[in-house]
Amino acid sequence: MEFKLSGKDAGSKARAGVVTTDHGAIETPIFMPVGTVATVKGVHQRELKEDINPDIILGNTYHLYLRPKTSIIEQAGGLHKFMNWDRNILTDSGGFQVYSLSDNRKIKEEGVKFKSHIDGSYHFFTPENVMDIQRTIGADIIMAFDECTPYPCDYNYAKRSMHMTHRWLDRCIKRFNETPDKYGYEQTLFPIVQGSTYKDLRRQSAEYIANSGAQGNAIGGLSVGEPAEEMYEMTEVVCEILPEDKPRYLMGVGTPINILENIALGIDMFDCVMPTRNARNGMLFTAHGTINIKNKKWEADFSPIDEMGITDVDTYYTKAYLRHLFAANEYLGKQIATIHNLGFYLWLVREARKHILAGDFTDWKNKMVKQMDKRL
Amino acid sequence: MEFKLSGKDAGSKARAGVVTTDHGAIETPIFMPVGTVATVKGVHQRELKEDINPDIILGNTYHLYLRPKTSIIEQAGGLHKFMNWDRNILTDSGGFQVYSLSDNRKIKEEGVKFKSHIDGSYHFFTPENVMDIQRTIGADIIMAFDECTPYPCDYNYAKRSMHMTHRWLDRCIKRFNETPDKYGYEQTLFPIVQGSTYKDLRRQSAEYIANSGAQGNAIGGLSVGEPAEEMYEMTEVVCEILPEDKPRYLMGVGTPINILENIALGIDMFDCVMPTRNARNGMLFTAHGTINIKNKKWEADFSPIDEMGITDVDTYYTKAYLRHLFAANEYLGKQIATIHNLGFYLWLVREARKHILAGDFTDWKNKMVKQMDKRL
Ligand SMILES: [Zn+2]
Ligand SMILES: [Zn+2]
Repeated sequence: MEFKLSGKDAGSKARAGVVTTDHGAIETPIFMPVGTVATVKGVHQRELKEDINPDIILGNTYHLYLRPKTSIIEQAGGLHKFMNWDRNILTDSGGFQVYSLSDNRKIKEEGVKFKSHIDGSYHFFTPENVMDIQRTIGADIIMAFDECTPYPCDYNYAKRSMHMTHRWLDRCIKRFNETPDKYGYEQTLFPIVQGSTYKDLRRQSAEYIANSGAQGNAIGGLSVGEPAEEMYEMTEVVCEILPEDKPRYLMGVGTPINILENIALGIDMFDCVMPTRNARNGMLFTAHGTINIKNKKWEADFSPIDEMGITDVDTYYTKAYLRHLFAANEYLGKQIATIHNLGFYLWLVREARKHILAGDFTDWKNKMVKQMDKRL
Repeated sequence: MEFKLSGKDAGSKARAGVVTTDHGAIETPIFMPVGTVATVKGVHQRELKEDINPDIILGNTYHLYLRPKTSIIEQAGGLHKFMNWDRNILTDSGGFQVYSLSDNRKIKEEGVKFKSHIDGSYHFFTPENVMDIQRTIGADIIMAFDECTPYPCDYNYAKRSMHMTHRWLDRCIKRFNETPDKYGYEQTLFPIVQGSTYKDLRRQSAEYIANSGAQGNAIGGLSVGEPAEEMYEMTEVVCEILPEDKPRYLMGVGTPINILENIALGIDMFDCVMPTRNARNGMLFTAHGTINIKNKKWEADFSPIDEMGITDVDTYYTKAYLRHLFAANEYLGKQIATIHNLGFYLWLVREARKHILAGDFTDWKNKMVKQMDKRL
């Protein structure tokens, strides 16, 4: 994997870059649509490619491991072939999903025992087998196995957990280095900074992670319920330490405003279920604020979903039609809203990139943040 | 509306023709995908047009009347504009849905009082207001208000009901003739033959309907549970009487085999929820038989969904991938299966047309019927 900085903003820490892997270039800042279980819910691969057009998507190791199961993906020749997606894929480590199981998992130094949400069967994730699973899934970028602490988190728990995440990282790196790229193309490991909302822990973790010498670095454990200001503080502290010449990935973030603010702090990569999940609930993001399309006010509004027309659906269908589909509980409504929201998120990061390169990112960002903070 | 016969099969009653309306040509035989509530469930209008490519789709008056409501469709300028579909639309009369409500409707000579399945509110359909509603929905072809009898049906009930349907037809025609085309393009009324599974009633009804001098004629009350042989007998009896120079529409039929057999008996138009509903349950129709894609046997079958590649999805995705989507209850599975099945149905009627014109329809039909009658 290569990372080249294409430009930096003068008024902030924002950067534009290009990550290049064997599955092609990823222009940063980038938002990665979440394709949990080998599908971005309700979106055809063709629409994803042609209408939404991200250079990379994300898959969830926990979900893929359980269904279709690693062995099926292996027989298919990896996730790219299994789902017929020839651009980049990043997989998370399963850590976040496993910790979300709360009562149904037990964390030990060796790893995590957990109960499948599907059939109640027991499974064991370790730093080592999570490397093997991700190798086999075949993502271009694979994530270290970490513990994601909840918010709020007791200082001592956060500290102990962070150190375990660091020890797990060492085991991840060892296993990763001992195993070959599974399918002929390069796979790259990203370690994850933890430390909850404690600046000293975040600094300590960022230093540990920076010292691991990875090709790219991630920040985990944020966007778990803390106020946005705390998130930004942590990002700022960590970005000061993480190497400038490596991409920085902020996991699980966030709203369009969160994304712009974190780009300003030096983040290059994002993922979040928000655009897709909210779309399925009828919540649309636009450059001029959010729309609850279920609202009766749109019932006879025959204007396009979004005049900006970022994706085909935005001008192909009207607000009244989309509102009707939600009122009638027709799945096409969710499909349309999902394409709209993802198209908007990808537009937003592409636009951010343009403004970073043009040198007016901060002004544009401040205008957009104000503009998007409305309910239409 | 115009109808031109392009050719007839020597070995059967099959015909190829072209229906022309202000929304374009409909090559027959045709299968009309069902777009119940202004959407073919899970299918984008663009996919419907480009991948499935029917000249006409069907909407359900009962559903559209309740949601989004006739007034919203009227404000949009008709259903074509409301859903952004610029080809032909046919609406049923609501009769079938209303009768399906069984305990929640009361049939009188004047019309039918029924209770909405959505909010329990009461509504009244009459031959007159059903003409007005369909005029306002704006379909190119609108259907007479009829009573669809159940199967089996007592002879006397079937007879009484048929005569009421005939009286209702007179009222439909009167109202239809008194009212103008709503949106500047021509709207055409099709009457419906009833008579349950009684040949003498079917003959009597077909004569009444033929005498109404409509531009096209429909056969209702079949495919409601009777054996296929009885359906074919009724179709045969009715097609002998309905004018040859008018299109014949067999409502609610059916399996791919039913469609080919009824084409052989002289039917030109079909609609059915089977390809879409069964798709959502994981049942795929192919030229070589049906596939239950949920079956574990497809788990590691990385061959294309359908080697014939009628639609993009057929070769874009594998059986294993589609099976996984159904196993994981991912809606994309239903979307893919729906496009496949509709694509196959449209292929089947187009192919039938080609063979009618080529003069070898019967041989081809017999081969296909044998071939499709399998479970893969
Ligand atoms: Zn440590
Ligand atoms: Zn009569």
